[in-house]
Amino acid sequence: MDQIYELFNKIKDKQPLVHHITNSVTINDCANATLALGGRPVMADSSNEAAEMAAQSSSLVINIGTLAEETVESMLKAGKAANEKGIPVIFDPVGVGATAFRSDSAKKILANVDCSIICGNMSEIRTLAGLPSSGQGVDSGDSMEGAEALAKKLASELKATIAITGAIDVVSDGEHTVRIQNGHPMLAKLTGTGCMTNSLIGVYAGTDNKPFEAAAAGILTMGLAGETAHQNLRANEGTGMFRVRLFDAFSTLTVEDLKKGARING
Amino acid sequence: MDQIYELFNKIKDKQPLVHHITNSVTINDCANATLALGGRPVMADSSNEAAEMAAQSSSLVINIGTLAEETVESMLKAGKAANEKGIPVIFDPVGVGATAFRSDSAKKILANVDCSIICGNMSEIRTLAGLPSSGQGVDSGDSMEGAEALAKKLASELKATIAITGAIDVVSDGEHTVRIQNGHPMLAKLTGTGCMTNSLIGVYAGTDNKPFEAAAAGILTMGLAGETAHQNLRANEGTGMFRVRLFDAFSTLTVEDLKKGARING
Amino acid sequence: MDQIYELFNKIKDKQPLVHHITNSVTINDCANATLALGGRPVMADSSNEAAEMAAQSSSLVINIGTLAEETVESMLKAGKAANEKGIPVIFDPVGVGATAFRSDSAKKILANVDCSIICGNMSEIRTLAGLPSSGQGVDSGDSMEGAEALAKKLASELKATIAITGAIDVVSDGEHTVRIQNGHPMLAKLTGTGCMTNSLIGVYAGTDNKPFEAAAAGILTMGLAGETAHQNLRANEGTGMFRVRLFDAFSTLTVEDLKKGARING
Repeated sequence: MDQIYELFNKIKDKQPLVHHITNSVTINDCANATLALGGRPVMADSSNEAAEMAAQSSSLVINIGTLAEETVESMLKAGKAANEKGIPVIFDPVGVGATAFRSDSAKKILANVDCSIICGNMSEIRTLAGLPSSGQGVDSGDSMEGAEALAKKLASELKATIAITGAIDVVSDGEHTVRIQNGHPMLAKLTGTGCMTNSLIGVYAGTDNKPFEAAAAGILTMGLAGETAHQNLRANEGTGMFRVRLFDAFSTLTVEDLKKGARING
Repeated sequence: MDQIYELFNKIKDKQPLVHHITNSVTINDCANATLALGGRPVMADSSNEAAEMAAQSSSLVINIGTLAEETVESMLKAGKAANEKGIPVIFDPVGVGATAFRSDSAKKILANVDCSIICGNMSEIRTLAGLPSSGQGVDSGDSMEGAEALAKKLASELKATIAITGAIDVVSDGEHTVRIQNGHPMLAKLTGTGCMTNSLIGVYAGTDNKPFEAAAAGILTMGLAGETAHQNLRANEGTGMFRVRLFDAFSTLTVEDLKKGARING
Repeated sequence: MDQIYELFNKIKDKQPLVHHITNSVTINDCANATLALGGRPVMADSSNEAAEMAAQSSSLVINIGTLAEETVESMLKAGKAANEKGIPVIFDPVGVGATAFRSDSAKKILANVDCSIICGNMSEIRTLAGLPSSGQGVDSGDSMEGAEALAKKLASELKATIAITGAIDVVSDGEHTVRIQNGHPMLAKLTGTGCMTNSLIGVYAGTDNKPFEAAAAGILTMGLAGETAHQNLRANEGTGMFRVRLFDAFSTLTVEDLKKGARING
């Protein structure tokens, strides 16, 4: 995956502008993760300006973690504006399947916007694929069994890179499929690590429009940062300091760290 | 209060899904506090999905810290859905009394939703009880004098557990009343410690529907975590590191810590 | 600038209530920065209560980082209510010029509300002054060349204190102009440092209504806190710990620190 390392090295020059239309829970984390990796975040979710902001950005991240009717409209407008300009769109289908409103909104987005990358947990991706799922709230309730075949199939159907996050992450563009074994269980004890993964992917995709590599790079970066954050914890430290060390890792990771730490199987 | 310790021990198995309809200021803190204690947060405040999400949750936390007309509607819908299913509702009347809109919204919520637990500061609880209050913005301006009698009376009237937070916290269900003397003044220098207290209560109430014990347990957890966080500060550290240590404490507290540290008087 | 130090010393007694109508990205940071410096934050952005809350506050901070139609209405109502009571209004024109909606909203605000202080980056202030600007998203793309003359001119035109933040910050009320050379490049790697600067200014302006001194004091506080935060970083620490140390600094800075560290040229 030399292209991942090339992408990483290009961030500094490009400083991609990553437009987010995202949820109110983790919006600050998404902005700081984007900055820590070398991107520039911008968040504009009004339907009055979402398209105009998207059209001047390097990538667009759409996240349905907290939805409102106007936000869905903004996502559609911004997604279409991005598509017209060839700007990559990353879609995080948070909690899809949990409510009819989320499922309907996700369908509208997929029907109207060409997403370059869709990254979610197993329950979310199963729902998008029309399979039964056992998600609860925004958490996955399904095992990762069959994840590679599912990612590959959905990628071909949607002409997008599909990433399924879990203990082992899977990324497929329909032709190539990789498994990423980085990460740490404590990442599940922080809100927004899935959202931030999509922001990191947005930084990579906004640096160079290579969806498969960008998705793998974003997931690898989150996984390695989680490992580093955990290693740097001392006795009696918990999720408070883990979060601090996670952002420390985002902002200090080197390409050598990525090369040494990556556990990716093609 | 052995039942508090039993509740604490049950969290791990139950991993309660705690639905929040809450304010935009501290929503991330509420999610991370819920996770740190072992719950699973979900936040969905659109009137299109609030009820559907509440119906599948273990508890519902309603917080009026930042209100909008649609959010009030969502709170009513979600509250009714929770009531129908016997899911406990925790109500945090942030800043009630500061504006007519907040007071009217709180009245609507109380008139339409059976709240299991209402937890606020002295000015907020006085306002709900129809007493004059001296709150400013979201801060209390009233002394804790008469807090026990007030909590007891309002609990009987509303058939709910009433918790009044202050230097010494008071919890009453109308029959039993306790005073909790844990906590630290630095908690008042962080935004959202009241909101997070309600989230912690939501975790306990979602683990087992015992409102009185859940309210006491949530307040005790916040108080002890505040003490622990302060003890772990070094010279020149302030509210930044206090916040980190607070989440560390939420996520590393043991039942032995609770038993040893609790200063509860029945 | 002895008046800055006097302002600082008065915060503790006044504990100003700083009302914010601000963006969803950094709203939590703004609240915690306000608290750390000794103010009391309140955030109410519904048009149903924004004016009522503003009328009882010590200062009002308006920030257009994420706009919605209702929020603009709330800003206008709250701004007028503040003006009627002589409560200072601080305006942070985040990303103005990036979209027509932001520019139009800023124009409406300036046409209807007397702002005591306007604080933004060079691209934002150039846009407000009707000059061409090269901002991207919410970041400045313009050099600080001519900043002093621009601040002075716009201050006279708008009868407000104008602050332009950059590597060297400039503050002018049309008569007096200062340059502040405090700060650290890492501040640009965190989201919301501009927003928090306006909150700090809100604390000072709410303590005593001296716009020029309050603007300089807020910018100096942010700059010094940034320097302190950076000095306290250890090897391998990045933006995660920098953020923690920034809040530590807000909450532990003394008037002696300000006096010793200030690099202000009249």
